[in-house]
Amino acid sequence: MPVDEPAVQVAHPVIRVHNHAWDRGDDVLAAEEPMEIRLLWEADGWTERKSVAITMRTPGDDFELALGFLHGEGIIDSREDVLDVNYCLDEAEDQRLNIVTVTLRAGLTFDLAKLERNFYTTSSCGVCGKAALDALDLQGYQALPDGPEVESSVICGLPETLRRKQEVFRSTGGLHASGLFDLQGNLLDLREDVGRHNALDKLIGHQLLQNEKDLAGRMVLLSGRASFELLQKALVARVPIVAAVGAPSSLAVQVADTFNVTLLGFVRPDSFNIYSGEGRMVRG
Amino acid sequence: MPVDEPAVQVAHPVIRVHNHAWDRGDDVLAAEEPMEIRLLWEADGWTERKSVAITMRTPGDDFELALGFLHGEGIIDSREDVLDVNYCLDEAEDQRLNIVTVTLRAGLTFDLAKLERNFYTTSSCGVCGKAALDALDLQGYQALPDGPEVESSVICGLPETLRRKQEVFRSTGGLHASGLFDLQGNLLDLREDVGRHNALDKLIGHQLLQNEKDLAGRMVLLSGRASFELLQKALVARVPIVAAVGAPSSLAVQVADTFNVTLLGFVRPDSFNIYSGEGRMVRG
Repeated sequence: MPVDEPAVQVAHPVIRVHNHAWDRGDDVLAAEEPMEIRLLWEADGWTERKSVAITMRTPGDDFELALGFLHGEGIIDSREDVLDVNYCLDEAEDQRLNIVTVTLRAGLTFDLAKLERNFYTTSSCGVCGKAALDALDLQGYQALPDGPEVESSVICGLPETLRRKQEVFRSTGGLHASGLFDLQGNLLDLREDVGRHNALDKLIGHQLLQNEKDLAGRMVLLSGRASFELLQKALVARVPIVAAVGAPSSLAVQVADTFNVTLLGFVRPDSFNIYSGEGRMVRG
Repeated sequence: MPVDEPAVQVAHPVIRVHNHAWDRGDDVLAAEEPMEIRLLWEADGWTERKSVAITMRTPGDDFELALGFLHGEGIIDSREDVLDVNYCLDEAEDQRLNIVTVTLRAGLTFDLAKLERNFYTTSSCGVCGKAALDALDLQGYQALPDGPEVESSVICGLPETLRRKQEVFRSTGGLHASGLFDLQGNLLDLREDVGRHNALDKLIGHQLLQNEKDLAGRMVLLSGRASFELLQKALVARVPIVAAVGAPSSLAVQVADTFNVTLLGFVRPDSFNIYSGEGRMVRG
């Protein structure tokens, strides 16, 4: 079955801020799309189907991803356990390449209940990028209003401020961090975790516990890369400016574009990239 | 309720390899433990309970993590939506601090089915570190046999070899990579993804598709940090040596210790750390 080669990179306009210069150009983002893995097998003469996982992945090598995942979960042991692996052609065209169906050989025994118990969840998404964004919209989350504004020099200082406070990071090198800042670049709160989504959940959860509901005048700095799920969490918390030390994914930029979130990446002492929401950035 | 302060760092013996010198000492690892989030609410006069997520996290700020997660999922909007948040004291003592129960206020409406649809899964684990390791053991995965051996200078060369091949990484800076090497440090295969677990699933899935089942003479290099789930996947694929450019988590080291996997971290051109399985490392 011929299938178009998936895009592992996605071009997107970017503004490269270096000191006081702003250069417009194109940047290349790592593609991020959800993929669902479905199992198909025969049991007592019936054909059983089950969706066993949805993961956010870079398109490409999707069959390998499905088989590697099932191997790691102890469902399949070798290639012989698999009758067929294919995209789901029953689905609407824009979803096809995001669903992989693995047909298991007849007689293969596995513990489906155990498979379900073993799965753990990290965040939310839909089945394809568009569906995920639609779902967010349907949930009642609207685009953020314009403003506030922040000076570019303030952004450049955020990582150093975060690092100075990251005492745990300094000793283990193993933790992701999320920092909450005001518009002058003062660090208000910091959380760290082995999971980047957990660090942000802890940061936002703390504001919730403090009854600090209005984050409209706040910025978040992420110590690593900016993925879909991190942008989604920032959006739900109504944080208008998200800066990351690392790169954003394609779907993260898509969320930022759609919901008017300012998304900055590769933040350094003298430079950073603006991927979305440039209206909130002031030269200075 | 007084609760012991959780350990965000865990000490573990380490061998620091610097050129030909081996120094034994202690290193501090970022603690990684699973945490389950349970919801409790009243509906039609009945008390309903539901486990909604299990996430691998660094202990600490667990209530914030639970509330931030539920906020991100659209279940709660403010502190007033939460009657109580607490550890689950019904459970066995070693599990208590890994289960957080959030009691919602009466009359709060939310779409549980949507919550379930939205969750996506990334990997497997049990409810606590020990349970996860027990479960792996019960699944029939035994400790790896001793051997093979590899020279330390070969390890130091792996990241540069991987980087040279990471063409996508060079342009986007946004992808994790997993590389498969032979014992002489030759790169056999490379996969990249926005998700680190996906990159390893793709790498192992490709070996499976190739019917390359015996990875006993192979090494894996991870471009980032080594978490529990990555070690679990390497173990299931029977890869004896796992090297990471970043730091390992406490639970990753626990898996390596328990199942005789060699786990190396902070791999640099002239140095790295041995966290587990030193028997496979030869000075040279």
